[in-house]
Amino acid sequence: MIASAITAYIAPAAAGSGIPEVKAYLNGIDAPEIFSFKTLVVKIFGIITAVSSSLHVGKAGPMLHTTACIASLLGQGGSRKYRLTCKWLRYFKNDKDRQDLVTCGACAGIAAAFRAPIGGVLFVLESLSSWWRSALLWRAFFTTAVVAVVLRAFIDFCRSGKCGLFGKGGLIMFEVTADNVSYHLVDLPPVIVLGVLGGILGSSHNFILDKILRLYTHVNEKGYRLLLAACVSIITSCCLFGLPWLASCRPCPTGITEACPSIGRSGNFKKFQCAPDHYNDLASLFFNTNDDTIRNLYSAGTDSAFNKYSIILFFVTSYFLGIVSYGLVAPSGLFVPVILTGATYGRLIGMLMGSHSTLDHGLFAVLGSASFLGGTMRMTVSVCVILLELTNNLLLLPLVMLVVLISKTVADCFNSSIYDMLVKLKGFPFLQRYAQPYMGQLTVSDVVTGPLQILNGVEKVGNIVHILKTTGHNGFPVIDEPPISDCPILYGLILRSHLLVLLKKKFFRHSISSDEVNVFEQFSSDDFAKRGSVIRDTINDILLTDEEMEMSIDLHPFTNTSPYTVVETMSLTKAHTLFRELGLRHLLVIPKSHSRAPVVGILTRHDFMPEYVLGLHPFLVGGRNKLLHFRKSTLIKFFSDLCRF
Amino acid sequence: MIASAITAYIAPAAAGSGIPEVKAYLNGIDAPEIFSFKTLVVKIFGIITAVSSSLHVGKAGPMLHTTACIASLLGQGGSRKYRLTCKWLRYFKNDKDRQDLVTCGACAGIAAAFRAPIGGVLFVLESLSSWWRSALLWRAFFTTAVVAVVLRAFIDFCRSGKCGLFGKGGLIMFEVTADNVSYHLVDLPPVIVLGVLGGILGSSHNFILDKILRLYTHVNEKGYRLLLAACVSIITSCCLFGLPWLASCRPCPTGITEACPSIGRSGNFKKFQCAPDHYNDLASLFFNTNDDTIRNLYSAGTDSAFNKYSIILFFVTSYFLGIVSYGLVAPSGLFVPVILTGATYGRLIGMLMGSHSTLDHGLFAVLGSASFLGGTMRMTVSVCVILLELTNNLLLLPLVMLVVLISKTVADCFNSSIYDMLVKLKGFPFLQRYAQPYMGQLTVSDVVTGPLQILNGVEKVGNIVHILKTTGHNGFPVIDEPPISDCPILYGLILRSHLLVLLKKKFFRHSISSDEVNVFEQFSSDDFAKRGSVIRDTINDILLTDEEMEMSIDLHPFTNTSPYTVVETMSLTKAHTLFRELGLRHLLVIPKSHSRAPVVGILTRHDFMPEYVLGLHPFLVGGRNKLLHFRKSTLIKFFSDLCRF
Repeated sequence: MIASAITAYIAPAAAGSGIPEVKAYLNGIDAPEIFSFKTLVVKIFGIITAVSSSLHVGKAGPMLHTTACIASLLGQGGSRKYRLTCKWLRYFKNDKDRQDLVTCGACAGIAAAFRAPIGGVLFVLESLSSWWRSALLWRAFFTTAVVAVVLRAFIDFCRSGKCGLFGKGGLIMFEVTADNVSYHLVDLPPVIVLGVLGGILGSSHNFILDKILRLYTHVNEKGYRLLLAACVSIITSCCLFGLPWLASCRPCPTGITEACPSIGRSGNFKKFQCAPDHYNDLASLFFNTNDDTIRNLYSAGTDSAFNKYSIILFFVTSYFLGIVSYGLVAPSGLFVPVILTGATYGRLIGMLMGSHSTLDHGLFAVLGSASFLGGTMRMTVSVCVILLELTNNLLLLPLVMLVVLISKTVADCFNSSIYDMLVKLKGFPFLQRYAQPYMGQLTVSDVVTGPLQILNGVEKVGNIVHILKTTGHNGFPVIDEPPISDCPILYGLILRSHLLVLLKKKFFRHSISSDEVNVFEQFSSDDFAKRGSVIRDTINDILLTDEEMEMSIDLHPFTNTSPYTVVETMSLTKAHTLFRELGLRHLLVIPKSHSRAPVVGILTRHDFMPEYVLGLHPFLVGGRNKLLHFRKSTLIKFFSDLCRF
Repeated sequence: MIASAITAYIAPAAAGSGIPEVKAYLNGIDAPEIFSFKTLVVKIFGIITAVSSSLHVGKAGPMLHTTACIASLLGQGGSRKYRLTCKWLRYFKNDKDRQDLVTCGACAGIAAAFRAPIGGVLFVLESLSSWWRSALLWRAFFTTAVVAVVLRAFIDFCRSGKCGLFGKGGLIMFEVTADNVSYHLVDLPPVIVLGVLGGILGSSHNFILDKILRLYTHVNEKGYRLLLAACVSIITSCCLFGLPWLASCRPCPTGITEACPSIGRSGNFKKFQCAPDHYNDLASLFFNTNDDTIRNLYSAGTDSAFNKYSIILFFVTSYFLGIVSYGLVAPSGLFVPVILTGATYGRLIGMLMGSHSTLDHGLFAVLGSASFLGGTMRMTVSVCVILLELTNNLLLLPLVMLVVLISKTVADCFNSSIYDMLVKLKGFPFLQRYAQPYMGQLTVSDVVTGPLQILNGVEKVGNIVHILKTTGHNGFPVIDEPPISDCPILYGLILRSHLLVLLKKKFFRHSISSDEVNVFEQFSSDDFAKRGSVIRDTINDILLTDEEMEMSIDLHPFTNTSPYTVVETMSLTKAHTLFRELGLRHLLVIPKSHSRAPVVGILTRHDFMPEYVLGLHPFLVGGRNKLLHFRKSTLIKFFSDLCRF
């Protein structure tokens, strides 16, 4: 309830795992508040309270969001609102450095959550980032190396037991100790079954989660946010305390070093109302932290510790509790529930195989986790590396790779990955890497609409204010007309934020033909630096007198004179490629024939959204698969492709 | 000698490791013969003979080249010259698919060489590829997963000893068995020293190798290729058989399970002229395969097995033999010598630390390898993962990361990575990711030179033949002029190879105004498919009559109507970004003012080469660091940057 209340009333942006928001940000979508200081604080306290309440949620996603927040705050030079600023941080005050910092922050979060420095880098590379370059790889790697060294130092420091549960497991969280991992051809069928099962369960997990989240959105909109959290919390508690009654007591195995029944924290054998020397296996699964349950499921030589029906019951509970817990208005991660659920059905398959397979049930649990991760999150290399770093068992790698490949392939037949789904559900205008196939039939001019707002190289203040007030555009083409040039030519592109700076500083002059002043003396690059994500200047904050409105501004020194341009007959697919690969915000469209204005339109992210394009050209909806254009378009596409490479 | 002879006389492209060639190919440079069938065969036999001759060369690089060759041959539909073709392979006959295949092939090569499936993917991602997308990650991962499963099956099959040395070590090549890897703050200084040493030794390794290769080029040009190989081979043999005499015999340690002195192959204790129960430690290092020597150096609990001076002697020999062996006209890899040399000085540092450090000398050897790999090849994540997969020791990861970071940072202060150096030395026009700083002062029109060859939409055959014969360009702008259009407009870009297809098929018509014929009936996309890398049509192969020369071709259906364009005033830096990120071959330059021709130039890879740009604008050479432009250019750059993100 605390987690839900602080999230709902202080920082709604802190709800959920935060991974979709970071993914959207790394695609260029700067949603408000997602990296604010308030969100950071709520996220930290929220996830602590949510996880400690035994809600079936993970902590990896929120940890990633936390570290990304910290990185972003560094990137915007601290939080001015809370007086936490630092002067030397101003060098990072631009979009590019901030994005790099957030990327490194995200890597650090995953690296810390799983104690997996390489897995963290690869997770962000594979699942989150939209652009990647080798310099970034190197920086991200540096970040996670520091994480690893610091973690290692803390674990060393905490070895004496000063830090509670932290550091007990050492650097490897779920050590898989089956010494002799030998597998043969006969083990392949169950592994393939696991992969297929992981694909099916993963895609249905995503499907159900999508439906549940839509339902929750309705409920939350009606103001029942806290009630919903209370309900889920009560259901979870009921499952935890009620279901173990269904399992029967089992006698303690003989010849084990562990205490049985265990009274302590992480033991495998919980007493739960059983007679002495007996334990309840379902309670052993429920009454542990998620981490310890995973450790128990992964551990070798415990093939007979669990009853088949207990495992089935736990699997069903874990699967559905994971789904219903995610959508609450509270910080919550998906990773740990997914790993746990996967481990459960993996172990179940191991039990069903019985003596047909030589593999230990603990190894089956690891493969189950891999298959469910592959089925829901559709990661490949990063799952393998994270599991490798979690379990420290390299010999299992070929099997893990196989199972992840199968589960991802199967799941991809049904729907998209969970993060893509969440990004879409949140309504972010996410720019996919590849254009839709039907975009090849359109040219750029087919999607350019609306009247274009153009500024002159030397423009009247009144006009600028009017344009800024009446439109929401963030970039405006600047045109030079006679007498400045012989004929109208495109001078460049100016950003709304820079116009606001000029208006604020009242950089005006009286007539169009005034002498030039040295702008470099009046402005420094700091003036145009990227502001924090919370502070957004608006045109209404700027008050100008009538006399000032009649004056004019020379926009030339502040205009980007090298904007990227495309000709209006350019294929939309290729414009999409240009826009996406170069990470642009504005793309100017210039005319093919010379008799018209020097710029005919401006493309932004929204012009490439499939919904928008299909809205403009509804005939493409049905004709997407029409064979009529097939041969021709193949040949045309072929020629277009040849221009690349 | 066999390796050198077949390389020199059959396929000179098979010399060296092949990694620079693959790197250049993945950057878009299609050098002749590097992926031909001949090269493949010579590479395979050459590396077998070279390694088995005890030359100090590795096999990882050539294995990467081999697999890349196979991938490329698949991509071009087999080898038509040797009648090894397959019809369904024709779908891959385009540059993009071929590049993807070569990438996956390269991953498979490293994965097989080190039995490191994830390391293989990361190595290619970090060091070789110029473009990367998540679909490729997933395909590369699939490839290496298959490699891992097949390797695992072979090792299983060979466990009974049917396959000689193969598979003896299991999936982990150099298992580091030090069970209790515990390290403390006191171990940090030697680790840092190792990192710094690795950086210095690595950069000097690259520097000396560069000089040696330049020297070898002179020698080889004079025809002494085989003589050089013979000399190096004799020097290697002299070192192998002569140097162990300098080491004194050591008594066998007591209480070991291994035979001492060992007569067999891979033992740690070689007899070499010693009395019974004695061994020669230097001979133990020399008279093993490189793999076994590395295994011996990495093995735990052998702290007293080697003498300090033997290790120093072996280090010096290994360092210089590695350098002089690489440049021979024979297949040779760099990886294994680098790992070996690194392991040697790592162990030396361990010995020098003595009791000051709690770390095992075997672990020092691993860290030494990491530092030397980081110092020469400047890889980060991939070194860590490859070493992790080679040694199966996850607990060492934080130290490995630290040492790699330090050695890379130190080495980057002096020179560039070994592969960058080799690519430059071979004269490939490699397009760097980032433009040179001084390019920001230039516009596109500053580098466009020479008369532009333009074709009309409907062009006379004679003109086309003339242009193709007199220029070497690979792409030509196509212009529509009145009466086809109202004013001259840019229609698109046509490739030389497509013009050759049209001329070969004699797709002519008699007059400019003839009726249109359906080109889709006369041509299929197969006709324009990318040819194998060896077969290159030239204009001189096509014979045309005088009558045909007077006819014309309608180029419209074969023209790429959406070429990427930049305005002539575009900053060269931004044009470079566009060209590089989109992987273009041609970039059209259009005029700013409308009064001129619709296209003013065409940019290719060569126009972005620093040598070319500096040749055109020599004043930039000295002025690169001038502070005069500093403030202004900073502000301008700032505005340009803002357009992105």
